Amino acid sequence: MTPPTQPAHDPVPLPPGFRAHAGAAGLRERGDDVFVVVNDGPSPASSAVFTRSLFAGPSVVLSRQNAASGTARGVVVVAKNANVATGEQGMADAREVLERAADAIAVAPGELLIASTGVIGRRYPMDKLRAHLDGLAGATFDADAVALATAMMTTDTHPKTARVEVTTTTGGTAQVVGIAKGVGMIEPDMATMIAVLFTDAAVEPGVLDSAFRAAVDETFNCLSVDTDTSTSDTAIALASGAGDPVGEVELREAFEAVCLDLTRQLARDGEGATKLLTVEVTGARDRAQAKRVAKAILNSPLVKTAVHGADPNWGRVAMAIGKCHDDTDIDPERVRIVFGDLETYPAFPGEAELERLTEIMRAEEVTISVDLGVEGGAADGSCTVYGCDLTREYISINADYTT
Amino acid sequence: MTPPTQPAHDPVPLPPGFRAHAGAAGLRERGDDVFVVVNDGPSPASSAVFTRSLFAGPSVVLSRQNAASGTARGVVVVAKNANVATGEQGMADAREVLERAADAIAVAPGELLIASTGVIGRRYPMDKLRAHLDGLAGATFDADAVALATAMMTTDTHPKTARVEVTTTTGGTAQVVGIAKGVGMIEPDMATMIAVLFTDAAVEPGVLDSAFRAAVDETFNCLSVDTDTSTSDTAIALASGAGDPVGEVELREAFEAVCLDLTRQLARDGEGATKLLTVEVTGARDRAQAKRVAKAILNSPLVKTAVHGADPNWGRVAMAIGKCHDDTDIDPERVRIVFGDLETYPAFPGEAELERLTEIMRAEEVTISVDLGVEGGAADGSCTVYGCDLTREYISINADYTT
Repeated sequence: MTPPTQPAHDPVPLPPGFRAHAGAAGLRERGDDVFVVVNDGPSPASSAVFTRSLFAGPSVVLSRQNAASGTARGVVVVAKNANVATGEQGMADAREVLERAADAIAVAPGELLIASTGVIGRRYPMDKLRAHLDGLAGATFDADAVALATAMMTTDTHPKTARVEVTTTTGGTAQVVGIAKGVGMIEPDMATMIAVLFTDAAVEPGVLDSAFRAAVDETFNCLSVDTDTSTSDTAIALASGAGDPVGEVELREAFEAVCLDLTRQLARDGEGATKLLTVEVTGARDRAQAKRVAKAILNSPLVKTAVHGADPNWGRVAMAIGKCHDDTDIDPERVRIVFGDLETYPAFPGEAELERLTEIMRAEEVTISVDLGVEGGAADGSCTVYGCDLTREYISINADYTT
Repeated sequence: MTPPTQPAHDPVPLPPGFRAHAGAAGLRERGDDVFVVVNDGPSPASSAVFTRSLFAGPSVVLSRQNAASGTARGVVVVAKNANVATGEQGMADAREVLERAADAIAVAPGELLIASTGVIGRRYPMDKLRAHLDGLAGATFDADAVALATAMMTTDTHPKTARVEVTTTTGGTAQVVGIAKGVGMIEPDMATMIAVLFTDAAVEPGVLDSAFRAAVDETFNCLSVDTDTSTSDTAIALASGAGDPVGEVELREAFEAVCLDLTRQLARDGEGATKLLTVEVTGARDRAQAKRVAKAILNSPLVKTAVHGADPNWGRVAMAIGKCHDDTDIDPERVRIVFGDLETYPAFPGEAELERLTEIMRAEEVTISVDLGVEGGAADGSCTVYGCDLTREYISINADYTT
């Protein structure tokens, strides 16, 4: 497997077996806002995970149904409008979008997945969507991953793509290409905003599903920009089988690499963010405890503002750990807090190390490591989570620009 | 019971039976930073609740021990330094402060409570504290509640006091006076930052305790500025018995009135806040569910920024409710969302009501009401919680002014 690359704006072709179209239906003022991807096979497999929000919209409800087969043939993504809390009419609109898109690419509506994000509580502009989708039958399906990632952006500042190559069982290579969007209302729980992975590897749906879920659990589910969970989170993996078979371990590792790359891009591009904040917790009773403590630190507004101000305020990290008061096996006397590679608690850095500490805090990536030292802690009692600092710009984006 | 008053800066005398001294030990650049209150009785009773933080400091540990008797004789409060995460030396320092303060007012150290807030991870400046406390024996104990509230402020913009009169069983009146501080690192859990209530009512410790805990549960425990829980939260009630007896119901109502007044002052003075945000949830399965949903709304940064921007974005309220995904008996179809007195979901206001809605959102107090409509919901399935908007100033206070 090659290390992931972040080609930003250079074209990133989809793997063999996929065709895509990105176009402008007029949902936003300029630029593409709808895309449709077709999985031409020869052996389509799919997996998808979704938000657990009680207010999940029709897109999530319908995709959950259509994903159950494990052999979805394509995805349609609508930007700028989440189609959430829109009642029965919203469900009817979503069904119609699925049907028209399915017609255009000659698959059954039940073989297509749908994802939407954007404003909550407004109906799709159906006239614009109908006109756009009905024109797709004659359109050229040659969009690359960057075009797709761009078409689904909302307040993202750049399209997010990632790509790795993975060795097949026959000694050749298959590709995994991923796209993602989302920079606010982000604390995914079982899924992220919208992410789609494509691979030409030949893989059974069950294997694809378990590899994808394992990768999501280590990456998108360890991401939080602002503790708010979207009503629309959707992560999808599609395999065409146009390439050779890939082993399950290799596939999971490739998925993890792509998802981790996208997760870090999402965190770094969090609304108003100036820094990527990574929190690593070790020495916990189990992974669940490590994740709980790591999230408490990552989501603390006082830790996030300290990171923004480059203030090595380890007292706020201690405070955030202290919030997990049901974890009574955490003993403050055994806890270690490290900023970058410098221990700040219990061994507070001396004057000689303050310059190094300032340097660590001023970097564009800040890592806080905590060893809980829980007695009898499990070997897997660790977790790494990804977020960002909290800035005035987050307030501006979400307070001043009314929706 | 008279309605609570907020005398801001006019003197608020302590009830009969209490004496207090506020003075400057030099912990901050100017102004008082230490106070000592003595309960002269004749029948002292006390109750206290504390933070559940795992990193609770020596002040909380010692006060928890000394509060167990229900007959504490006084309180010493130290500002500017939390004395938290300071190890065994911090515990020894706290014991010494208790002993010297107890000596000065001629009570046993075990009869005194102690509370501190401020920077975490630094030792008390013991030389300054020793000099100050040893000088107390000859000092005049005539401080009022405003002087005490002022001495314990950190980033508070004004001292917070509240006062009610309550009818005694003999037909006379007793007083309840309260003080509070704290505007950041506030999501109290079993207690708030620092609050002290004084009453001259004659009351058994057990009755005082149950009345106080009931009041705290409805007020301080329904407060959140920023989801961060302090390591030092302490709320104390002291009764001197210098007045006549008060019935338990009357006492609880008086405590609730004072605590609610202080809670609203704390929320409105939340770091950087420009508005008081109140969230009322009704129609829940039980009070716990109502509180969970209310806190999810109150703590959502996207709801808080929308309130700051005067944006009636009920979609973000729906999102926040949706985060409570373990509450599977909440059916989005039965939920009602109201801003001020205008329903926004499912009946979104028409053009004619938009002006009124804008007026509601621009007010200095914004109330969001949600009826969950849970089938078979209990009569007590409601909860009201108090917080504030999220502003650039919160970021400035916590990012720019390093500690």
